Formats: sequence, structure tokens, C-alpha cells
Amino acid sequence: MKISELSERTGVSLPTLKMYLREGLLPQGVKSGPNQASYDDAHVQRVRLVHGLLRVGGLSIAAARDVVSAIDSGGPLVHTFGVAQEAASTPVDRERTSDLALTTVDRLTQGWDFHADGPGRHLAANAIAAFESAGQHDAARWYERYVEAALLIAQADLDLVDSRDGREAKAETVVLGTVLGDTLLAGLRRAAQEHIANTRYPMTARNST
Amino acid sequence: MKISELSERTGVSLPTLKMYLREGLLPQGVKSGPNQASYDDAHVQRVRLVHGLLRVGGLSIAAARDVVSAIDSGGPLVHTFGVAQEAASTPVDRERTSDLALTTVDRLTQGWDFHADGPGRHLAANAIAAFESAGQHDAARWYERYVEAALLIAQADLDLVDSRDGREAKAETVVLGTVLGDTLLAGLRRAAQEHIANTRYPMTARNST
Repeated sequence: MKISELSERTGVSLPTLKMYLREGLLPQGVKSGPNQASYDDAHVQRVRLVHGLLRVGGLSIAAARDVVSAIDSGGPLVHTFGVAQEAASTPVDRERTSDLALTTVDRLTQGWDFHADGPGRHLAANAIAAFESAGQHDAARWYERYVEAALLIAQADLDLVDSRDGREAKAETVVLGTVLGDTLLAGLRRAAQEHIANTRYPMTARNST
Repeated sequence: MKISELSERTGVSLPTLKMYLREGLLPQGVKSGPNQASYDDAHVQRVRLVHGLLRVGGLSIAAARDVVSAIDSGGPLVHTFGVAQEAASTPVDRERTSDLALTTVDRLTQGWDFHADGPGRHLAANAIAAFESAGQHDAARWYERYVEAALLIAQADLDLVDSRDGREAKAETVVLGTVLGDTLLAGLRRAAQEHIANTRYPMTARNST
């Protein structure tokens, strides 16, 4: 198909598609004339993926490029996970993470098999450090319940990946699930907070809280 | 105490403290001289709170101001939750949320008691819309398990708030838990993903995946 049809089928504008091509987010089409190239269903799929990463995932172009290369590299899925995790995390200055908070995270995740310099451990430690330095103490049980929930979520993530056929489909699910799963969870958590707050403090009581 | 001591006790620099005062994030001290004001423990606590919201929570100054006003307003906790949720969410263009994805969210959260225009419902719908438009289908069970996890997390959040004494302490926990809980969960989820991936695909098998 021509690039105009690629635009129609994906709902992504021509200038945006040209930017994807220029930035290496979308492979070039097959040359079909002096000033024309032809695109196929794999391009449609890739445009949808890139659009999801940039628009809702909020990834930078550079981060999306890393993610797309990780899919195309054909490397092990564990590596694709690592790249997706890094791309979908606010940059963490690992040198400045509080040692005390890292110790807390290590105690909470005792027996887990993961790299000490991955983004997860440092993100969690930074959240705990900020929480405690803002004067929030006695939250050990809260942390533990987050750990339990994180395990359930990660199991769901891996089950979804396992249900996909073929390495490329699995890699795409790794990437999109990692990037969009945070937003899905943040949204559902907010709705659930409101639901439970409304259940625990029904209107009459709520007005006097 | 003088502002220099407030800076020492909180580890926040003088220029930053002056910015907090100027931006209305920190109440003015009691005038103790022509060019001097006196601060107390409540200021120390507030500086730590604001610092956590801005530095790790990544809130804008305007969003942090909304959150601080919600704490100080003495209004119902359910309202404080709402303000914290809004402040800690990437802005959502509610007009542009996909109706189909909203229907999916409503089916997943059937029987829950929350406002249709709160940030949670729209955040979740946007994640689902991006996921599905990127070609990810057959994820119904994945969504359901996220809903179950979100309920567990929200219960932990509310239990932590309930454990605090007094309205202001509760309101601070609402705010910090909402803002930093997303980051804590994102971090733990990444570590758990890696742990479970390493467990399911041990090194020998992993190399050939």
C-alpha cells in the first residue's frame, strides 16, 4: 500500500508517519517508484505500536527507538523486558538512591531473582525514601501488601506474554504491557480507592469526617 | 527557628525554601524582626511533604499547591483523595477517551461506587484503548487480574490512612500514598517481572528463547 493508505488505515497523519520513518521508528517501505514506496501489514502493526508507546505510554522518541530495536533484535525476551522497563521508567540517578531505602526494598523482596541495578529496585527505593523523609512511618505492612500485589500483577503480565504465539508477538506484548500496564494500574487503583472510600465512609458519615 | 535552621533540619536549600514561601507551598513564618521570621515543627513537616511531592512524585508546583490546599482546607478525606488523584495523574482529555474502552472499564468495575468523570476511569480507558489499537487483543483475563490487584492495593491504601491519628495526618497520608504509591508499585512490578521471568525461563532455556 502507499503511505497515504497506511495513514488512513492507522489514523496516524502523514507528517507523523514521515517523522516515524526519519527517526527510525518505522522501517522504510519497499521502493516502488522514483518517489514512492510500498508498505505492508507489518508496517500497519508497527505504526500502531509506536503510536501507543508515544501517545499514551508517554515515551520519548529515543526511548521508543530503544524499545523497537529490542523487538527487532530477536534477542532473549528477558532482555526485551529490561529495555522496556528502562524506557518506561523516569530516569533514576542510581548513585543518589538512599542506602537505607534500598535495604528496605531488599528485605521486602528477599529471595527474588533480579539485578541489583535494574530500574525496579531503585524506583521502589526512591518512593520509599521520599515517603519516609516526608514523615510517613510505620508503613511496613503497606509495603508488604504492595509487594504481594506486584507479584500478582507480574504473574498476570508473564501469563499474557506466554499466551502469545511467536517471539515477535511475545516481544510486542512485553513492551506494550510494561509501558501501558503502569497507566492501567494507576487508573484502576484510583477508581478502587474511591470505591472503597465510599464504601467505608458512606455519605452521612463522610460529611462529618 | 530561623529559616537557616529550617534548611538544615530538612536538607532543603535556602533558595528552594524561599521559592516554597513565594509559591504558597509553605505558610509564612511568624514575624520576629524587621527582616526575620520564625518557623516551627509544622513547617519542618510541610517542607518534607512538599519536597517529596515535587522531587519524587514529580508534581508541578501548581499541582503541589492544589494538594497542600486540600490538606489545609479541612474538607472531607474523600475530597482530598480526589485532589491528590487529579494532581498525580497525567492530564487526561476526557472528551477524547474512546467510548469502547470506557465500556470495557465499566464492565470490569461493575458495582463499584465512583464518579464517572474521575481521573481513574479515564486513565484506565486510555491505557486499554492504546493497548488494543496497538493490536493487543484477547487480554480480558489480564485486565481482570489488574482489577483484582487494584482492589488489594486500594484496600492497603485505605488501611494505612485509617491507621493515622487525626484529620491532618490522614490527609497527608492520602496525598503521599497516592502520589508515591504509583512509583512504589511501578518499581516493585518491574522487580517482580524480572524475578518471575528468571524463574520461568532459567538461564539455559532463556538463552534459546
